[in-house]
Amino acid sequence: MPKGSDVLRTHPHQPSTMDLIIATVEACRECALACSTCADACLAEQEVAELRECIRLNLDCADVCTATGAVVSRLTRPHRTPMKTLLQGCIEACQTCGDVCAEHARMHVYCKACAEVCRDCQRACHALLNAIP
Amino acid sequence: MPKGSDVLRTHPHQPSTMDLIIATVEACRECALACSTCADACLAEQEVAELRECIRLNLDCADVCTATGAVVSRLTRPHRTPMKTLLQGCIEACQTCGDVCAEHARMHVYCKACAEVCRDCQRACHALLNAIP
Amino acid sequence: MPKGSDVLRTHPHQPSTMDLIIATVEACRECALACSTCADACLAEQEVAELRECIRLNLDCADVCTATGAVVSRLTRPHRTPMKTLLQGCIEACQTCGDVCAEHARMHVYCKACAEVCRDCQRACHALLNAIP
Amino acid sequence: MPKGSDVLRTHPHQPSTMDLIIATVEACRECALACSTCADACLAEQEVAELRECIRLNLDCADVCTATGAVVSRLTRPHRTPMKTLLQGCIEACQTCGDVCAEHARMHVYCKACAEVCRDCQRACHALLNAIP
Repeated sequence: MPKGSDVLRTHPHQPSTMDLIIATVEACRECALACSTCADACLAEQEVAELRECIRLNLDCADVCTATGAVVSRLTRPHRTPMKTLLQGCIEACQTCGDVCAEHARMHVYCKACAEVCRDCQRACHALLNAIP
Repeated sequence: MPKGSDVLRTHPHQPSTMDLIIATVEACRECALACSTCADACLAEQEVAELRECIRLNLDCADVCTATGAVVSRLTRPHRTPMKTLLQGCIEACQTCGDVCAEHARMHVYCKACAEVCRDCQRACHALLNAIP
Repeated sequence: MPKGSDVLRTHPHQPSTMDLIIATVEACRECALACSTCADACLAEQEVAELRECIRLNLDCADVCTATGAVVSRLTRPHRTPMKTLLQGCIEACQTCGDVCAEHARMHVYCKACAEVCRDCQRACHALLNAIP
Repeated sequence: MPKGSDVLRTHPHQPSTMDLIIATVEACRECALACSTCADACLAEQEVAELRECIRLNLDCADVCTATGAVVSRLTRPHRTPMKTLLQGCIEACQTCGDVCAEHARMHVYCKACAEVCRDCQRACHALLNAIP
């Protein structure tokens, strides 16, 4: 089955950091889905009032991951400065959201899964950020 | 490695159409990435002026797939009417974009890959649409 | 102060429906903001558990309005079929969300404002849809 | 006519920085529209091949402004660290995009308008960033 990353692999530009780029794009997309779904799962709980902070940070993290994945996936004429700051913002959004999700990991299986996806995304963004001169 | 769909699998609501929902959410996400990357790849070509229609439809299809994936991934208190029309719009956006990409499939490997991802997304949305009463 | 719509007014393509296009783009953007803010305001209420449906429909409506505004704002090589279905989906999302917000209009001033913005967006999309052959 | 910002003005939380928040949310939304429309207008030009960098930075800036406007518009349980970095990233995206648009300001009226909207957004984000402790 063809995938979105196949389009990246056949793009006219193939930067030396391609593996890190694809890993970051995929991690940002997994994290955006995990976070928006975690917000919706929290909303379904009886004790939703206790989960406000988690919902809010989930929505923020999904927005930042979506923007970061989109910017990183573009290979034509990139500019480093805003991309690096955006990656840093994504690392911080994943850290903040992952920390709050991890606090509910025992109660909600989906928060445990979401926290792990946030950690993965944080690591992928960090690896790419370190590879950009 | 944990994935975004693991959060869907552990969501408090588990509708009977869950497999179709996850297939649609994943297909919409693959298609959004394929289309936005295809737009960027077209932009990198010498003959970009010939590829305007492809770029525009790619950007539209990415926007519609992103919205459709987000709406379908929410399991708390869904309403059928707008979701069904959105799925229909996504089918049409994928059809239109896939047709134009398929015309360049011989010249550009990435357009071939993008056309296939569009077809997959179209099929997934269609299967879910048929399953909603 | 320059505005986003000034870029539309000076675009190389100036379709005969330009006034309806700008009205729809602006209405979709107002509605996306109104709905995502209404979701956040509901989340801040003590009785957030009673407001799940409103929050969910708000997030859906914001996603659909964002996609619709983006697609309608592109003037280069448009295709009618998916655009018309997307406009129809936006009308239904605004109707559904506006109806639920209107039910809380007495209790929450922001739900009253959100319902009115949804109605405006519905009207703007309807007027444009009627003008597309 | 009711507006999206009316929902912010009637939100249960009214932080002391509300005027700066609304100014930033509005500026980010104007900038997202200006940039995505500028990309589409560039795509319509004969010499689109000369405008690749402008198109790419426009799309990036639109994505970052959309995310920043969304995060800033949420008033329930905010976290400062990722929000401040995101505002900084938005300032840099607007600066980069505005600089490239300004280079074409004499040739394309819409690039002139877009550059001005980018500057406004940069100023609004800067003012809010300075007001966050």
